[in-house]
Amino acid sequence: TSSSKLLIKGGTVVNAHHQEVADVYVEDGIIIAVEPNIKVGDDVAVLDATGKYVMPGGIDPHTHLAFEFMGTEAVDDFFTGQAAALAGGTTMHIDFVIPVNGSLTAGFESYEKKAKKSCMDYGFHMAITKWDEVVSQEMEIMVKEKGINSFKFFLAYKGALMISDELLLQGLKKCKSLGALAMVHAENGDAVFEGQERMIELGITGPEGHALSRPAVLEGEATSRAIRLASFVNTPLYVVHVMSIDAMEEIAKARKAGQKVIGEPVVSGLVLDESGLWDPDFVTAAKYVMSPPIRPSGHDKALQAALSTGILQLVGTDHCVFNSTQKAIGIDDFRKIPNGVNGIEERMHLVWNTMVESGQISVSDYVRITSTECARIFNIYPKKGAILAGSDADIIILNPNASFEISAKDHHSKTDTNVYDGKKGKGKVEVTIAGGRIVWENNELKVVPGAGKYIEMPAFNYLFDGIHKADAQYLSSIRAPVIRFQSST
Amino acid sequence: TSSSKLLIKGGTVVNAHHQEVADVYVEDGIIIAVEPNIKVGDDVAVLDATGKYVMPGGIDPHTHLAFEFMGTEAVDDFFTGQAAALAGGTTMHIDFVIPVNGSLTAGFESYEKKAKKSCMDYGFHMAITKWDEVVSQEMEIMVKEKGINSFKFFLAYKGALMISDELLLQGLKKCKSLGALAMVHAENGDAVFEGQERMIELGITGPEGHALSRPAVLEGEATSRAIRLASFVNTPLYVVHVMSIDAMEEIAKARKAGQKVIGEPVVSGLVLDESGLWDPDFVTAAKYVMSPPIRPSGHDKALQAALSTGILQLVGTDHCVFNSTQKAIGIDDFRKIPNGVNGIEERMHLVWNTMVESGQISVSDYVRITSTECARIFNIYPKKGAILAGSDADIIILNPNASFEISAKDHHSKTDTNVYDGKKGKGKVEVTIAGGRIVWENNELKVVPGAGKYIEMPAFNYLFDGIHKADAQYLSSIRAPVIRFQSST
Amino acid sequence: TSSSKLLIKGGTVVNAHHQEVADVYVEDGIIIAVEPNIKVGDDVAVLDATGKYVMPGGIDPHTHLAFEFMGTEAVDDFFTGQAAALAGGTTMHIDFVIPVNGSLTAGFESYEKKAKKSCMDYGFHMAITKWDEVVSQEMEIMVKEKGINSFKFFLAYKGALMISDELLLQGLKKCKSLGALAMVHAENGDAVFEGQERMIELGITGPEGHALSRPAVLEGEATSRAIRLASFVNTPLYVVHVMSIDAMEEIAKARKAGQKVIGEPVVSGLVLDESGLWDPDFVTAAKYVMSPPIRPSGHDKALQAALSTGILQLVGTDHCVFNSTQKAIGIDDFRKIPNGVNGIEERMHLVWNTMVESGQISVSDYVRITSTECARIFNIYPKKGAILAGSDADIIILNPNASFEISAKDHHSKTDTNVYDGKKGKGKVEVTIAGGRIVWENNELKVVPGAGKYIEMPAFNYLFDGIHKADAQYLSSIRAPVIRFQSST
Amino acid sequence: TSSSKLLIKGGTVVNAHHQEVADVYVEDGIIIAVEPNIKVGDDVAVLDATGKYVMPGGIDPHTHLAFEFMGTEAVDDFFTGQAAALAGGTTMHIDFVIPVNGSLTAGFESYEKKAKKSCMDYGFHMAITKWDEVVSQEMEIMVKEKGINSFKFFLAYKGALMISDELLLQGLKKCKSLGALAMVHAENGDAVFEGQERMIELGITGPEGHALSRPAVLEGEATSRAIRLASFVNTPLYVVHVMSIDAMEEIAKARKAGQKVIGEPVVSGLVLDESGLWDPDFVTAAKYVMSPPIRPSGHDKALQAALSTGILQLVGTDHCVFNSTQKAIGIDDFRKIPNGVNGIEERMHLVWNTMVESGQISVSDYVRITSTECARIFNIYPKKGAILAGSDADIIILNPNASFEISAKDHHSKTDTNVYDGKKGKGKVEVTIAGGRIVWENNELKVVPGAGKYIEMPAFNYLFDGIHKADAQYLSSIRAPVIRFQSST
Ligand SMILES: [Zn+2]
Ligand SMILES: [Zn+2]
Ligand SMILES: [Zn+2]
Ligand SMILES: [Zn+2]
Ligand SMILES: [Zn+2]
Ligand SMILES: [Zn+2]
Ligand SMILES: [Zn+2]
Ligand SMILES: [Zn+2]
Repeated sequence: TSSSKLLIKGGTVVNAHHQEVADVYVEDGIIIAVEPNIKVGDDVAVLDATGKYVMPGGIDPHTHLAFEFMGTEAVDDFFTGQAAALAGGTTMHIDFVIPVNGSLTAGFESYEKKAKKSCMDYGFHMAITKWDEVVSQEMEIMVKEKGINSFKFFLAYKGALMISDELLLQGLKKCKSLGALAMVHAENGDAVFEGQERMIELGITGPEGHALSRPAVLEGEATSRAIRLASFVNTPLYVVHVMSIDAMEEIAKARKAGQKVIGEPVVSGLVLDESGLWDPDFVTAAKYVMSPPIRPSGHDKALQAALSTGILQLVGTDHCVFNSTQKAIGIDDFRKIPNGVNGIEERMHLVWNTMVESGQISVSDYVRITSTECARIFNIYPKKGAILAGSDADIIILNPNASFEISAKDHHSKTDTNVYDGKKGKGKVEVTIAGGRIVWENNELKVVPGAGKYIEMPAFNYLFDGIHKADAQYLSSIRAPVIRFQSST
Repeated sequence: TSSSKLLIKGGTVVNAHHQEVADVYVEDGIIIAVEPNIKVGDDVAVLDATGKYVMPGGIDPHTHLAFEFMGTEAVDDFFTGQAAALAGGTTMHIDFVIPVNGSLTAGFESYEKKAKKSCMDYGFHMAITKWDEVVSQEMEIMVKEKGINSFKFFLAYKGALMISDELLLQGLKKCKSLGALAMVHAENGDAVFEGQERMIELGITGPEGHALSRPAVLEGEATSRAIRLASFVNTPLYVVHVMSIDAMEEIAKARKAGQKVIGEPVVSGLVLDESGLWDPDFVTAAKYVMSPPIRPSGHDKALQAALSTGILQLVGTDHCVFNSTQKAIGIDDFRKIPNGVNGIEERMHLVWNTMVESGQISVSDYVRITSTECARIFNIYPKKGAILAGSDADIIILNPNASFEISAKDHHSKTDTNVYDGKKGKGKVEVTIAGGRIVWENNELKVVPGAGKYIEMPAFNYLFDGIHKADAQYLSSIRAPVIRFQSST
Repeated sequence: TSSSKLLIKGGTVVNAHHQEVADVYVEDGIIIAVEPNIKVGDDVAVLDATGKYVMPGGIDPHTHLAFEFMGTEAVDDFFTGQAAALAGGTTMHIDFVIPVNGSLTAGFESYEKKAKKSCMDYGFHMAITKWDEVVSQEMEIMVKEKGINSFKFFLAYKGALMISDELLLQGLKKCKSLGALAMVHAENGDAVFEGQERMIELGITGPEGHALSRPAVLEGEATSRAIRLASFVNTPLYVVHVMSIDAMEEIAKARKAGQKVIGEPVVSGLVLDESGLWDPDFVTAAKYVMSPPIRPSGHDKALQAALSTGILQLVGTDHCVFNSTQKAIGIDDFRKIPNGVNGIEERMHLVWNTMVESGQISVSDYVRITSTECARIFNIYPKKGAILAGSDADIIILNPNASFEISAKDHHSKTDTNVYDGKKGKGKVEVTIAGGRIVWENNELKVVPGAGKYIEMPAFNYLFDGIHKADAQYLSSIRAPVIRFQSST
Repeated sequence: TSSSKLLIKGGTVVNAHHQEVADVYVEDGIIIAVEPNIKVGDDVAVLDATGKYVMPGGIDPHTHLAFEFMGTEAVDDFFTGQAAALAGGTTMHIDFVIPVNGSLTAGFESYEKKAKKSCMDYGFHMAITKWDEVVSQEMEIMVKEKGINSFKFFLAYKGALMISDELLLQGLKKCKSLGALAMVHAENGDAVFEGQERMIELGITGPEGHALSRPAVLEGEATSRAIRLASFVNTPLYVVHVMSIDAMEEIAKARKAGQKVIGEPVVSGLVLDESGLWDPDFVTAAKYVMSPPIRPSGHDKALQAALSTGILQLVGTDHCVFNSTQKAIGIDDFRKIPNGVNGIEERMHLVWNTMVESGQISVSDYVRITSTECARIFNIYPKKGAILAGSDADIIILNPNASFEISAKDHHSKTDTNVYDGKKGKGKVEVTIAGGRIVWENNELKVVPGAGKYIEMPAFNYLFDGIHKADAQYLSSIRAPVIRFQSST
């Protein structure tokens, strides 16, 4: 079915705002029509979706393909990682560009190269790891010329990616002026460092030391800090990988007070608990090492609950995979285990099973948290994240009565382990269409390196609506400056 | 322009999920197309909306037209109240049917009659004020045959509308089984009664006694109670007229824990504070009397903040107007002042000014909280609440650069006072289209009694998605019943 | 050692406000001196307490001895229950008088009789289970003539002890006027009834149905309600047996806002979780049945934390024991299992081990939560609850280096089971002195029926300080009544 | 009355744990007896306290006498400041030693000299403003040899006193090992700096800019951070000058979770609001400048409420006075206005009036929050903070029926303004006795330079009880290190 014309018949078409039984007609990678009983000619490939859900392909807001980190490089590159994504119903991802020697431009060029082999669409966030006038100017270039509309700041990874409050404040101000979204990895890096030393002193060198060295209180701290500094600057904030009740409650509190804060749980935090890190097999334990760490049981359910009611808004993966050999670099010291878990392929299934099958959310909500809200936040809706006439033809067909089972043996990622190994559930992505082409059908991938396009993401997403009015309102309310005299005393 | 064909050109069409510059073409009361550059023939009336917002007409989820209450009857009936609504950009409302001598059927028939003169579309909620097998069966009839999908329970108005926890629990169960939404007026009626007596004993008989006799703590109590009982039954809950931080925080807490609770602030609670009740002129003070009472300053801003981030979901009015003569029934005793304030005409303007002009929300959010979310909750989206092909042609054109000023002198309600008298701001509804007809243009109303239709609202709205799955998941988790033996002792 | 003169030498004397190494000299049941190096004659019995803690005997604020309930009577009466108490270091308890056919006077007389055989001091709370003018007058008599300063209201036990909000409000007002402390059993009785029916319908008739029928949300609800009604009346409130995070958080919130609310966790809630109710042996499962039920794991730790910092104030037991035969009344229906667990003997040891040995509180805190705060709240400090010259000689000597182990086989209660069976820990009450007599030493009890005295408890405890000033301040702040005119309209 | 023997007759003696009518006999600066009807010889001066309260002299935990700061020196030195204190019923204070060029020893010596002229007892905290091995060793010397048991860390005053999270963590660890209490000034210094620049850019250079540049959100942030880092280290924390709801709520939350956090509101935060900073007279506005700033109305009442129930524990002043001339250094730039307000003389009266007269707390509570709890925290109870035999004779007689009025004209501080100017209320300290000498009587001071003694404060206060046990419990709970194998992959 390499035809450029495609009709999906009889399915329940689900958008975040509405669902209805309708046909979807696609031409040249674009959705042309969404309505009942579309008639087409013989040159059109027809997919029967009766009894199934036709939904926007997933968008993963948080991945690290081909990421050079902790002395090694993630084994899923822009081809293998994306292939895995497509097999799991995700048709776009947004990856984090890391500056090269502090240069944003060099970092961007490096990722442009990495992404050449892409088989699905992708966008970029950019990390900010130092601060000077050059960085500030490069941020402007990235936004105005390169299609980047978000910058990430690390409050952890002391000595490496971590930045100070002073830099964070400058970064928040710059983001605000550019209409770019500030993102944070929220853990207190100084305390994590302290916690790591403490574990080593206690003789705890295995993966369980990873969890013990950076407990949820440190994620809560940094989340609280980032939120309040963003409030002080009055700019929107996006908290990546919300892993704990501590962090979630800070977000809930800020939102209750009207602050524009986005919270992104990731699949591992939603469906796993930390117990795997205590596994006596190092290979098993090490595969769960990511930061912030997967938390004790209880955090998962609380994050699901907050996600179900919109306290948290969208689901990412932080997909960043290192194989067993790479993970074994830290065999004697958990601090050296490359951080990262898989998820780009499993996200759509696990979120369906955990959230929809459990009765916590509706199918429309599912579309919202896996696709639409991401597209809205990164300002590419309704090109992405919708089944509407004019939208890109990134579409999945999910059969709610079929089942899935996850296994490291037959997943499509290049890594040799899978943190979700053995998980099964209801709901199966039977067809994935990316850019109008069927790339996954009958459990077979048909992907082409280079077929993926870079998606430029414009600045000033909806979270920026009203920010200048709010600033003006604030200024008009402070009754300052006061005209003064000085009494004699 | 009584033409049945209408083209709105060049405006920014705003839906809750998206906004774009487009034309809107209407025929026979239905939106036929929403796209750029629609070409039409000469028989089509054309409205130029360049530089203006074209949005779904407002839906007011909470009104009491022609309400017989406290020995008198609200002066706005289904014609005058709706005319006022249309002048203010609201094109549909949902009114509360009150049973007649406990009979739901008689109540429904009574309201059918009242509504005959309607000039805009309307739906009904139904109040439940006693409990027996007949009521239970009538609830089923209302849902299955009469197009009602919500029932309201009063935790206040002791001796009149108030029901006990026992009845509330029965009601919640029945609602759940019917797929109908349970609504509560949340104040502790026993304590309100006590508070009223206390005021009279203190010699406080004026309108300020109304506020003092039923402080926010009693609204917080009843909100907490209703939410937890709904959680216990596992059925969605809608809290009407959230007037206080106390109530809002209960809703926020429940939502954070994943509970399906809807919170409806009303315009008076969002933009006023209680100070008017202390006005030395009885006429002025009495016009602010509604229940729960308008709260001290601070509650308003907190409700706005919670509304801006989706902790609260939609805005009503509790429009229920009594004129100065009626209000004067309580000249010597605030307990006899008929409860109610206006708002059906002012809601759209005041929410725009308070929420959008202040920078707290986007225009899409505005559509969501004034129209779309109401349509979704009461299960009539996208017939209502959207500017989409196929939707009813209930449309407003709002000019963000024009201004409004509210005055009792020239408002369209039949009452002689206005709690928003003198309020002004930016944003003006210049045109209202209801059922495809222009009913408000150039500050002139063109309304026809009987033009309004009753909108049946089907059961099982989106809040019910997953409820049975969640119940099943719960039952499968409790490890019960346990198979037992009895040891000898 | 039946001498009336006693010297305790060399111990660390611990009061809630201070600890120091000192001797304690006792004569005729009263502490005469507390100072280092007291010299005494040969007629004085001397106890060496070197290396041990000398502390006020425990006071259990919550017991039900010889309680007629659910068709049977608790097996520990005022002799056996008190003997058990003394063996465990508790030297006074406060029991709940239950009215007889609604008569407080008859109830009081009944309990006077039950208590004749007392071997240790005791006081009474009184339950209020209906409301009329007679009850109101009897409350006054109880306070002014009978030495009762607290009244308990049941929000659960529908059809039996449960009272309505209307009655609760009347009761709170009466308590306030008498300077008596209002206490509540906080569960929503209507919902519990509903939950019980639900379980039976599901075929869940065993003890696990007890927990499932009345989840923590219903305790949170009633606690919220009682606290807010007490706030509305502005009178202090004492919440008995705080069993859940839900209830504790309501108390914490109220206290943060300055409200005078006391929270009493009980030992079972602090150290157990609900899992025992799932035991396949009915005898084992049934022994854990009490109301509110013991909660899932997690609530225990949270209650300990709140207790450690004064969010909760003192520890009771709700000691109310029914033997296996009595519990078996409910073999086919958990609703018929007599509610109650033991604890009067175990409280002092378990609190020591759980709170002090775990490092959560200091020894002074231990005295405060097991004895002093109870004496203060019920207004008998420093006669009780202190090791001060002039105080009653109710004293324990606890050896922090010795160990305890709890067993149904050798406990002193008359019942044949023990919910703490098998629990062991550090800290052992080696000597108990009650009224100046050594009643427990070398693991032997020497108790005498009739040796215990009724302790009258005066009204207006410290929680009432300032209440009238606060009322006056409130009244002076409300700017009411407003002097009014009525404009012509 | 320079006699060394003194009898206070007939008053109500109030301690934090109890009050009773009794006489108090003093000899040579020590309380010898507290009991009814003490008989004394003619050589004993007798004070009649009938109808009055006899209470421990106040202890101010937070002062800055003779503080060299912002280029000038506070005008109240150890003589004038203490004289003012005594006139207001405060008989001891604890001042903050500031290191000299980072040297703790030099700082201590400098303050020893400043304090030579003391007319009342005093103790020292020590600030830590940098970190190296020398500082660490000096901390040990201060604790073990110099009688200091608390160290303060500034999270604000960027470029001057502020320290980083890394240093704070080191400091917390060192404090824990020494049994010394860590204190924090909690504001985010980086953000304050940013806020100050923002104000200057806006042309807001007056005192209102002080408040606007460092809003409560920044105090909340730093309080959250300090608390969580202290939790991570598991050491007690003392938050100085809690000025906002934001900070208070962080403390409340931590305490609810069992953390040992002390919150110290100061008088200015309890009884004032920020409006003074907007006064058009610079002299008036500038006198209110302190950090964290006095907050908008509403924070004061919330802090009072939290104080009344023990969420906050004791009241300080941050007394640090600069006269109008000194304040005028910042006439053109609020950043240069020396920070500080008065309070050492007014604290006891204002706390009485605000907390006791308003009905929020009992007289015993008053003693606790103004004196006893401070003595307990700094480990000098019951030498200080109690009216007990053996305690220092630091005593006040307060007449609850007399009145006070505060005026800059007749206060005893050397500064020429008073932030409480014009405040009046009930309750008057009529007599102050310090070290057994009557120093304030009939509105006259009789103070002697050099009469005050340095009070050494031992380490390991009650907050450290159980910390090692809790650490051990934690370590035994973590199931680590895990013994591992490595599977082949
Ligand atoms: Zn990260
Ligand atoms: Zn990441
Ligand atoms: Zn209502
Ligand atoms: Zn209403
Ligand atoms: Zn009970
Ligand atoms: Zn009980
Ligand atoms: Zn400070
Ligand atoms: Zn200070």
